[in-house]
Amino acid sequence: MTFRPLRFAASVTALAMGAALGLGPVTPAQADEGMWTFDNFPIARANAALGTAIDQAWLDRVQRSSVKFGGCSAGVVSGEGLVLTNNHCVASCVAQLSTPAINYAETGFTPATRAEELRCPGASAEILMDITDVTARMHAAGRGLSGQAFNRARDTEAAAIEAEYCKDQPERRCQVVSLYRGGQFKLYSYRRYTDVRLAFAPEDRAATFGGDLDNFNFPRFAIDAAFIRLYENGAPVETPTHFTWNPDRPTAGEPVFVSGSPGSTQRLLTMDQLLTVRDVQLPLDQLIMSELRGRMIRFGSESDENAFIVMDPLVGLENSYKRGIGRMRALVDTDFMAAKAEQEADFRGRSGDWLAAHTAAGGADPWTTLSAVQDDVRRLYPAYALLVARAGGGSTLYGWAETLVRAAQERDKPAAERLPEYADTRLGGIESRLLADRPVYADLEQVRMEWWLSKSREWLTVDDPRIRTLLGRESPEGLSERLISGTTLADPAVRKALWDGGLPAIMASDDPLIRYVLSIQGVTRSVRAEWEDTVEAPTAQASEDLAAARFAAYGDSVYPDATGTLRLTWGRVEGWTYQGTTVQPFTTFGGLWDRSTGAAPFDVAPKLLAARDRIDPDTVLNMSVSTDTIGGSSGSPAINARGEIIGANFDSTVLTQRNAYGYDPSVNRSVIVTTGAITVALRDVYGMDGLLAELGVE
Amino acid sequence: MTFRPLRFAASVTALAMGAALGLGPVTPAQADEGMWTFDNFPIARANAALGTAIDQAWLDRVQRSSVKFGGCSAGVVSGEGLVLTNNHCVASCVAQLSTPAINYAETGFTPATRAEELRCPGASAEILMDITDVTARMHAAGRGLSGQAFNRARDTEAAAIEAEYCKDQPERRCQVVSLYRGGQFKLYSYRRYTDVRLAFAPEDRAATFGGDLDNFNFPRFAIDAAFIRLYENGAPVETPTHFTWNPDRPTAGEPVFVSGSPGSTQRLLTMDQLLTVRDVQLPLDQLIMSELRGRMIRFGSESDENAFIVMDPLVGLENSYKRGIGRMRALVDTDFMAAKAEQEADFRGRSGDWLAAHTAAGGADPWTTLSAVQDDVRRLYPAYALLVARAGGGSTLYGWAETLVRAAQERDKPAAERLPEYADTRLGGIESRLLADRPVYADLEQVRMEWWLSKSREWLTVDDPRIRTLLGRESPEGLSERLISGTTLADPAVRKALWDGGLPAIMASDDPLIRYVLSIQGVTRSVRAEWEDTVEAPTAQASEDLAAARFAAYGDSVYPDATGTLRLTWGRVEGWTYQGTTVQPFTTFGGLWDRSTGAAPFDVAPKLLAARDRIDPDTVLNMSVSTDTIGGSSGSPAINARGEIIGANFDSTVLTQRNAYGYDPSVNRSVIVTTGAITVALRDVYGMDGLLAELGVE
Repeated sequence: MTFRPLRFAASVTALAMGAALGLGPVTPAQADEGMWTFDNFPIARANAALGTAIDQAWLDRVQRSSVKFGGCSAGVVSGEGLVLTNNHCVASCVAQLSTPAINYAETGFTPATRAEELRCPGASAEILMDITDVTARMHAAGRGLSGQAFNRARDTEAAAIEAEYCKDQPERRCQVVSLYRGGQFKLYSYRRYTDVRLAFAPEDRAATFGGDLDNFNFPRFAIDAAFIRLYENGAPVETPTHFTWNPDRPTAGEPVFVSGSPGSTQRLLTMDQLLTVRDVQLPLDQLIMSELRGRMIRFGSESDENAFIVMDPLVGLENSYKRGIGRMRALVDTDFMAAKAEQEADFRGRSGDWLAAHTAAGGADPWTTLSAVQDDVRRLYPAYALLVARAGGGSTLYGWAETLVRAAQERDKPAAERLPEYADTRLGGIESRLLADRPVYADLEQVRMEWWLSKSREWLTVDDPRIRTLLGRESPEGLSERLISGTTLADPAVRKALWDGGLPAIMASDDPLIRYVLSIQGVTRSVRAEWEDTVEAPTAQASEDLAAARFAAYGDSVYPDATGTLRLTWGRVEGWTYQGTTVQPFTTFGGLWDRSTGAAPFDVAPKLLAARDRIDPDTVLNMSVSTDTIGGSSGSPAINARGEIIGANFDSTVLTQRNAYGYDPSVNRSVIVTTGAITVALRDVYGMDGLLAELGVE
Repeated sequence: MTFRPLRFAASVTALAMGAALGLGPVTPAQADEGMWTFDNFPIARANAALGTAIDQAWLDRVQRSSVKFGGCSAGVVSGEGLVLTNNHCVASCVAQLSTPAINYAETGFTPATRAEELRCPGASAEILMDITDVTARMHAAGRGLSGQAFNRARDTEAAAIEAEYCKDQPERRCQVVSLYRGGQFKLYSYRRYTDVRLAFAPEDRAATFGGDLDNFNFPRFAIDAAFIRLYENGAPVETPTHFTWNPDRPTAGEPVFVSGSPGSTQRLLTMDQLLTVRDVQLPLDQLIMSELRGRMIRFGSESDENAFIVMDPLVGLENSYKRGIGRMRALVDTDFMAAKAEQEADFRGRSGDWLAAHTAAGGADPWTTLSAVQDDVRRLYPAYALLVARAGGGSTLYGWAETLVRAAQERDKPAAERLPEYADTRLGGIESRLLADRPVYADLEQVRMEWWLSKSREWLTVDDPRIRTLLGRESPEGLSERLISGTTLADPAVRKALWDGGLPAIMASDDPLIRYVLSIQGVTRSVRAEWEDTVEAPTAQASEDLAAARFAAYGDSVYPDATGTLRLTWGRVEGWTYQGTTVQPFTTFGGLWDRSTGAAPFDVAPKLLAARDRIDPDTVLNMSVSTDTIGGSSGSPAINARGEIIGANFDSTVLTQRNAYGYDPSVNRSVIVTTGAITVALRDVYGMDGLLAELGVE
């Protein structure tokens, strides 16, 4: 799968947003490259490349039919709020709705009627309505400032803009988005839906055949699809603008567009920045994830209940880890790095005039600035990664405690002094996620907390004063046991009382986890502040300068790095050839039967296996497409030239992980589950006749 | 600790033996640098540097008092075979002699009389008697050959030499050692003792205070010392040549020699080779170790029995992992790597004439050869690491099965066709280790096997034909469970029957693990053969050429890389200053009391704590010394200028891990437990009056 909304995702990408150049020839935006914004999509160029005839009306329809769903993407496929996404995008919801006794991951979730559709706790979905340029205001806000003052001025202005545009419209969400690494700022305004219900999920194994081993792999045999439905006031939302369902067999070479919200790319990092990612950031991230993986695997082997508890988090962790492995490989690939160095040389070669003017006006050389910042990144990254990006180790209870403590502390402050995630416009979203009734499993919570405390101590050393604050005289094992066994935050009513009670309630609380999080605020906040001041602010300012240099060198023929906002990419149904091996673009149900061994994760899901005789083995199951996607693109509608949906993007290949740093047209491939395969699943395996009728399938 | 005799140790160092240059100034062997052989020790230079007056007689006494003990070092300290080493060097023995009910790691092992000293299963100890130059014979054996033919010819000649020199002397062990990466070959002849008994071990926590967190750390507070005794014919061995025990308080700046068997350094790797270690080898090794660590930590948390079972293996794993972290840091340290590049440039600059003559005579440029081999290393390393270096994942049962199967297959072959470790001269050692009665714990064996199978599948991919052979249609979980629960190899009688029965017994066995190991011989042997042929042979040949170039450039003022053979290094008692922080060279018992928190691993061992009032808090516990040591040096006697033993080397610092690639006099430090602290432990904590009398302490 390509993306899951994990806290981990932020860590290796914390430095990175901005304008991008792919690999291959040095000229920008070659071949099928580019995650284009809808307000700067090169219609003519795409039509010329593909022989299609899309127009602005086509783009508008696609935009209004595309859905952002948590860390995933999705597409509206009926007039009654029905939305297609990936099964792995609803896996957490499925886990939360399940118990060891009634486990929808095992059985599939197949409501016979809409009344049986179940709400996903805390979930929301959004459709992008408008994009407004606010670059001038944002640039003005930061002018003349540096360090934390720069960060806070920008954050405050963004919060003010968001509040202005979304005023008195609770069904809207407004977000100021930095594009081209600060080269542009746009206000993205979304229609927001907070009642999202699960309408269908297959057996988990049908969606994850091959498990972690086949993840980021092709040929692939996974029905990684699910349906959700948007509700408002207890009824399905009317969605007259939607994709038409086209379950026809796809053809090799046909044009494909993918519309979704890729999370983050780092294509404009300088070579100095990339070497820091390679030498310091990825190794730390991967090493500690690997240990957590080992702890979780063993935890899951201890009982059936533990296996149930750990399944979804382990899949997420393994996905992040495998993506990291692909990135590590890209950054030690000498050809790939030589191509990146060549790009940088070309860019710098074209930027001589710009740089002369910039420095003459008193500006600093951004390449020099970014190079100098790397020493600080290398020095500060372990503390940032462990005490900020991964604080709590992914423990849900710790996350709730931190949110409660910080929200209480921040809500009392004026806007200009707040942590930006606690701006007034964002409190509603925080509250709904915090108060949603979701199961938590204390044993796994403790695994995470113990791991986090022990890795923090290991990487920062036992003699670091911050670690002394974190642990006192306790051990990670003892402290995590005390906190998790003693807290009552699993009860939504307790969380609600603390949220409503604000700072007085927090200060009066004797919940051990609340008291603990309070006691380490000095440490975690100061680590964050030092990182923002020393790393983020100068990086942001130098990167904005680089964006200006890039516009000067290449004009507007460049697209911005992914930022978790809606993009459109194009390509064709095609395989690839690598090191003498050619891979065909299609797999079939027949191939699935052939690959199955009966042993997990290569066992065919029982209901799917039982339907084998009803399924044409030549039906295309998955296909590879040369579109430019990355984590966050999961669930993105794959669309043909007529604007019909022909599949859902759910993955890419291990070779495609270099996509974070540059697009390589010879190997970058998206992996799509076809509407044809989904139709087979609904009709021949799970008997979802109501959905089929809604999709217009006869 | 600096070394444990783990299978893992081989993997990252497999490429590396040879002549060495430290860091700092480019001139060879600066400051206190150098792990010198006893037959080429620069007596005059050491005396000049230290103001001492050692001579050949001094060297001879030190050599005959120094002991190689498994993967560790040790020193004879009485006339009755008493030997001082580290507690961590006997930890596996202690674990094997213990049960959850009678756990000597908890209580310490404190025999009241010699009759209560217990034999360490399968252990042996050796004292180096003679060194003979066999370079000409070994060079002649390889001449004109390449690839596997070169390897086998060399192996065969070495086995022949060893057989010749040790003929009819079962108490001897002979070993042909490659020095200066094949620049020299020497026959090392040892007196071998196979009845080694445990004479004293402290409580484990007294030896490991601070656990993994304080490992490779200083200031340090660990009584990492233990005594073994050499026996023959049921009685202690007479050892008239031995170190005199000097428990006096050491002084800052005093000269110290350390005599021991450092395992492996890689100081002459070319830059191309170092980048492969950094980019490919260390990341794979560390990532998979980290996952195993996670599995083991969780396993140990499941019950008291599991905690007991996993303690010793986990300590060993964490030691290897932490050493790897130190090495990763060295290889991404830009200053360190710049110094290495400068050394290479100096060496190449001085080697122009040599290279011209070498190529004129038809030789290949060794730098070019080594550079070209790196593509193969990068391609082949995952299979080599997983299916050869780590085959079985450290499972003892798998190791026995592989030994039984291969020995049976190899013993039938003529000498020239055998795997070298099964040469006739080596069969005795294999047999005694194989048949020793040692406990194995099936649950932990399965953790290792499952981890190994699953990591092999992950790194080589599920579609690799070798993985299909390894797994068939089984899962790692199912296969490992079937093999470990079904095998009877834990019974020494079963192993003996299979060893004695040879190939017919093996082929007739229905033990599932024997059958499994037989079934994968084609895979594991061919991966090894390809590695030896494609990587090891050309690397060895190019490295021999580099050794010749080095002798030409620097004369005999260079010392060879560590090879697990006896070396002498000198330095002084001293601390260091790094990034503005100065560390003093001594710690005391008072410092131990201060550092204790009561929570593991910072809890003082109970008997030690109970003795607190009897111990002078100013007694020096550990000290740092600027000698040049590395893994394998654990237990090495630290000696003063009069040849008296003043401590046992047991560790170094994290910064010293760069020592593998180059010595940095400003930060490289050995960590020593003093004879004074050991005397306190024997006298004031554990009441070992007999040992004290034997050591001459009043």
